[in-house]
Amino acid sequence: MAGNTFGTIFRLTTFGESHGPALGGVIDGCPPGVPVTEALIQRDLDRRRPGAGGLTGTARKEPDAVRLLSGIFEGESTGTPIAFAIENTDQRSRDYEAAKNLLRPGHADGTYLAKYGRRDYRGGGRASARETAARVAGGAVAASLLSGRGIDVFAYTVEFGGLPATVIDAAGAADRPFCAPDPAVIPAWEARAKQAMGSGDSLGGIVEVTATGVPAGLGEPVFDKLDARLAYALMGIGAVKGVEIGVGFAAARLTGSTNNDPIVNPPESNNAGGILGGISNGQPVTVRAAIKPIPSIAVPQRTTDIAGNPAEIVVGGRHDRSAIPRVVPVIRAMVLLVVADFLLAQQAVRPVGAPWV
Amino acid sequence: MAGNTFGTIFRLTTFGESHGPALGGVIDGCPPGVPVTEALIQRDLDRRRPGAGGLTGTARKEPDAVRLLSGIFEGESTGTPIAFAIENTDQRSRDYEAAKNLLRPGHADGTYLAKYGRRDYRGGGRASARETAARVAGGAVAASLLSGRGIDVFAYTVEFGGLPATVIDAAGAADRPFCAPDPAVIPAWEARAKQAMGSGDSLGGIVEVTATGVPAGLGEPVFDKLDARLAYALMGIGAVKGVEIGVGFAAARLTGSTNNDPIVNPPESNNAGGILGGISNGQPVTVRAAIKPIPSIAVPQRTTDIAGNPAEIVVGGRHDRSAIPRVVPVIRAMVLLVVADFLLAQQAVRPVGAPWV
Amino acid sequence: MAGNTFGTIFRLTTFGESHGPALGGVIDGCPPGVPVTEALIQRDLDRRRPGAGGLTGTARKEPDAVRLLSGIFEGESTGTPIAFAIENTDQRSRDYEAAKNLLRPGHADGTYLAKYGRRDYRGGGRASARETAARVAGGAVAASLLSGRGIDVFAYTVEFGGLPATVIDAAGAADRPFCAPDPAVIPAWEARAKQAMGSGDSLGGIVEVTATGVPAGLGEPVFDKLDARLAYALMGIGAVKGVEIGVGFAAARLTGSTNNDPIVNPPESNNAGGILGGISNGQPVTVRAAIKPIPSIAVPQRTTDIAGNPAEIVVGGRHDRSAIPRVVPVIRAMVLLVVADFLLAQQAVRPVGAPWV
Amino acid sequence: MAGNTFGTIFRLTTFGESHGPALGGVIDGCPPGVPVTEALIQRDLDRRRPGAGGLTGTARKEPDAVRLLSGIFEGESTGTPIAFAIENTDQRSRDYEAAKNLLRPGHADGTYLAKYGRRDYRGGGRASARETAARVAGGAVAASLLSGRGIDVFAYTVEFGGLPATVIDAAGAADRPFCAPDPAVIPAWEARAKQAMGSGDSLGGIVEVTATGVPAGLGEPVFDKLDARLAYALMGIGAVKGVEIGVGFAAARLTGSTNNDPIVNPPESNNAGGILGGISNGQPVTVRAAIKPIPSIAVPQRTTDIAGNPAEIVVGGRHDRSAIPRVVPVIRAMVLLVVADFLLAQQAVRPVGAPWV
Repeated sequence: MAGNTFGTIFRLTTFGESHGPALGGVIDGCPPGVPVTEALIQRDLDRRRPGAGGLTGTARKEPDAVRLLSGIFEGESTGTPIAFAIENTDQRSRDYEAAKNLLRPGHADGTYLAKYGRRDYRGGGRASARETAARVAGGAVAASLLSGRGIDVFAYTVEFGGLPATVIDAAGAADRPFCAPDPAVIPAWEARAKQAMGSGDSLGGIVEVTATGVPAGLGEPVFDKLDARLAYALMGIGAVKGVEIGVGFAAARLTGSTNNDPIVNPPESNNAGGILGGISNGQPVTVRAAIKPIPSIAVPQRTTDIAGNPAEIVVGGRHDRSAIPRVVPVIRAMVLLVVADFLLAQQAVRPVGAPWV
Repeated sequence: MAGNTFGTIFRLTTFGESHGPALGGVIDGCPPGVPVTEALIQRDLDRRRPGAGGLTGTARKEPDAVRLLSGIFEGESTGTPIAFAIENTDQRSRDYEAAKNLLRPGHADGTYLAKYGRRDYRGGGRASARETAARVAGGAVAASLLSGRGIDVFAYTVEFGGLPATVIDAAGAADRPFCAPDPAVIPAWEARAKQAMGSGDSLGGIVEVTATGVPAGLGEPVFDKLDARLAYALMGIGAVKGVEIGVGFAAARLTGSTNNDPIVNPPESNNAGGILGGISNGQPVTVRAAIKPIPSIAVPQRTTDIAGNPAEIVVGGRHDRSAIPRVVPVIRAMVLLVVADFLLAQQAVRPVGAPWV
Repeated sequence: MAGNTFGTIFRLTTFGESHGPALGGVIDGCPPGVPVTEALIQRDLDRRRPGAGGLTGTARKEPDAVRLLSGIFEGESTGTPIAFAIENTDQRSRDYEAAKNLLRPGHADGTYLAKYGRRDYRGGGRASARETAARVAGGAVAASLLSGRGIDVFAYTVEFGGLPATVIDAAGAADRPFCAPDPAVIPAWEARAKQAMGSGDSLGGIVEVTATGVPAGLGEPVFDKLDARLAYALMGIGAVKGVEIGVGFAAARLTGSTNNDPIVNPPESNNAGGILGGISNGQPVTVRAAIKPIPSIAVPQRTTDIAGNPAEIVVGGRHDRSAIPRVVPVIRAMVLLVVADFLLAQQAVRPVGAPWV
Repeated sequence: MAGNTFGTIFRLTTFGESHGPALGGVIDGCPPGVPVTEALIQRDLDRRRPGAGGLTGTARKEPDAVRLLSGIFEGESTGTPIAFAIENTDQRSRDYEAAKNLLRPGHADGTYLAKYGRRDYRGGGRASARETAARVAGGAVAASLLSGRGIDVFAYTVEFGGLPATVIDAAGAADRPFCAPDPAVIPAWEARAKQAMGSGDSLGGIVEVTATGVPAGLGEPVFDKLDARLAYALMGIGAVKGVEIGVGFAAARLTGSTNNDPIVNPPESNNAGGILGGISNGQPVTVRAAIKPIPSIAVPQRTTDIAGNPAEIVVGGRHDRSAIPRVVPVIRAMVLLVVADFLLAQQAVRPVGAPWV
């Protein structure tokens, strides 16, 4: 759980730049017997591939074909590391040569230079959203593990360009434009997207996740709370600037008597988002992430070159107009990784679901 | 960075329940030569001790006197683990006997049972806010390390009971009631607090942190982003239900051209909160946390006993009416721990502030 | 598993110098329901306390009384961190003032200076063997966990001052002088010890550990092999200069046909020491550690002061004449910690002892 | 530092089975600016490839061609993860079908089944020595980092089949048969190897490592001692059954006055192996590993099938007759990884080589 590794028991390490030979990852700690195939991973990858975004997506067309390198025998995990790679095939590096000495506002160009003293300037290098393909692949393996235990994770857009959705049909969202939870909101969102594209600008939104079937007892009570790890997981996505659990920021304006969920069967509310004291309580786990507008815009911006001289920049290249909906499967993947990790970790404490003494 | 340990290089491990013999912690990885005394830690501890909250605080009066057990020689750290303990002296466990079989809404009673199969029911055990004293002590050591490098961290309440502060004087806030950033807002907040106390209810709010002097280059670019670790740190506090960086959730409603900070000298805006691509950019780092209303209220609530039978509960004991302001130094401490950890970690990469190649 | 923390699931963090206020530790990850009392820990501590060594031991008389600070409720672990402290009561720091500017041969004086730029020169500070008391306390908790699962760990001296024991009665050794596995060897070892004491010199030896009841399947197959972790655990004790598993170095001189243990029921040999491919095979786990002679000797030695000027030193103070037998319970404790950690870790993979598919 | 990841700052994660699509690894934490090319890694890989062993080696001929997937830009590390893969091209899996239900003595067949409930039986799967190719690749990157800081690591065979070398020419050993430190010993070792081959048996030996240029101050003083990590690193190699530092097991038979190295300039002895109190002292670091005879032998052995029925097995396939010399570059690689990790870690404590205060 440091650098490029996520998790403590079910651990995903990712590698790769947008314009290097390949990107991929290694999953360590997956228990034996989990069904894993390239097709299973590919299905999730295809949901975040370039072009998946409809109106909001980049024109870059890569198949993002995943190849399993290890850890699988006869279609199931063996318990050893599951490595996978995705070749980079469509790399027009020359697009980036022109601007290699300019710092793009809202991007990590300058901070990479401050950290490493140098950077791979082609397409954002490791800071490229392309890195998240490896997370989605890792999440697909976690999903296979979890679905065998009755746990499902749904992610969907609840607000786009300032326009909220009001009806939430979580299960169908993955197959709709914008990962919309309500077909009725799509036309308004399309209009909003076209408007932004017309002005060369970009948009953000809010993505919500609901995890169902999460057993009570997952999470560590102090630093490593389930909600803390979810916040870490989602804020570790480049486009995310805020994370909230249950009613989240709205809780700050409630009183204890209106915010507390009464303990009744069946539950009448879930303001806590399925987590109390950092540990799941058996209700659905709900979390939301604020997605900033993509910083690559065709509008001229003030900046400097790497020597500090003032300059103006118009970011060319083939870029999405919003991280939505391509970030949605990434967010889902991170939640899957968190839940899988805690589920396995809990088995070292006591059997999940065992009675109280 | 698992369970009860926070950090990777500068690591704090905490221990202790509200009603056990003592609570405390161990700081591992503090470099040699950092000034550390009991008085230095005590000063920060006193800011979060019971009674510090004025109108919002509990009547429990514990001195919370810290004792250094190791790692200090002649007033400075030696590089070996710095352990400290705070004795629990005022433990009225009998207050809790009556309700030991009832699950308190909004509390971790049931989730601890689900996780461990048992619980120390006296005063919330490890889930008690009292555990955070150890975090504040750890943060005080981090503050001493960081102040020697020109880094300061300020935390203050920007909203209480739904009433926002409009003027922000960060430096003076720690000494004001509610850690208010503006003296003018205090009367309204006091009235709001009295109103809630009168009805036996509790209140929440929003706390903001500004870290100044943070050099560019801190943070790991993928999972372990500076903002991800901050979100993890703050969401790991029991009362926190949401975290946002820079403009945070508001970014979801901006466009790229209005959200991007132009790169100019001096900076004109800081929507990014001093972090780009998960790495500090040299501007102040800003983060906000949503604080839920304390779940212990004198209002009758529906619940069950541990066998699942419906019941009504009125939570007695001596409880705060709001986590604000006692949570404020805890939030500050967590930010201090994050920054200290990344500052040391960066030294393994390249000297902080070294020129670009 | 870094710095002053040992283990990944069952984690022990230790703190404390020989001449600071206290030493102790925090056990994080102990599952709930393990019987833990001060008396249970004290029994193991008493086996390594000053004076326990008979002829070989120091005259320093400290009770080494352990105090539990957290994590225990009604005599059993709750699942939260178990902290404990041992006060330092008999600190004659002035014994060390005289030699504070001289580097003691065979000691860590110079290397601490190189690492930290300073050192707590009183009694070796953190490098003192006194630190190992915290390991023994941690091991006692691990022993309580393991004995509930049918696992026992025995440690005993198989060679002292160059004189090997030939008969091995592991179970009775802990109560005999030198932790001798054979009462018949004691007179010869006593004579050897007296001879060394007479000349102001010190002695070493070899300690063996046998862990019985270890189920098959513990250990991670690549870096984190059971034998690798055992080697790490034992070589992390100051006095240990070599570690071997099963027949160990002797295997280098065997052929495959004589070294391989035939797979028969019951087993006819255990050259492998109960570990194949880094994973336990269900036979007893056996490991040996080479103990160097204690470097503190009354014989004059050539050295330098901290400025590099040549000098002669005679190490005064109250020192053991051999790490044996006081190191024996430390070695046992480290093995207990390793086995406990892997036992819990394995539960995240699949139930221990579950049938093959 | 768990499962398939080695190190805390400079971290190597490996993946791959002997008969899967590929094996490889990810290096996380390599600082920017280290020269890394496929040729640089290939040179070290070629030293451990099948056939490199001369008389002792397998007939399996794989090019073991490494391919860099990420983290390198214009021939130098960027600071982001360096991933590499080696395709498996010569996989005669059918060789293993016949014996898939038999447990090979001295192998991990049964322990993998106990751990995972299943196994990839083709060629040992993850337990194959082939996995160590990834370690050698990782070590090559560490070597490039370290050579830039004046640190070199030499590994060589000091004993083979019971026959010791008496002259040590470390620098030339890598290019000699058996990695012999003395050309004169080679004929005797060849004769010993031929004798063992003739009887279908296998041989072991002892490998020594000397690391020169290691600055004083590397290592953590308690659990994570430099010698502890070296023991962990080497015992984590399948063929290693014992590890010793400096004079190692011989120290157990010395007295303090003969084992202590006097502190003189220049040093007159190095019994401590360059490590005091777990921290390097500036002298060469020396460590030895006992290599067991390879368990795959053509001699009939008693065993059982996976159902526990008695059986006889003659291990076919193409196997080495000794792990020596192919294990020698693996041992060197592990030492390189340890030293690189501690060198970087120390920079978080204080600048390496800074004066004492």
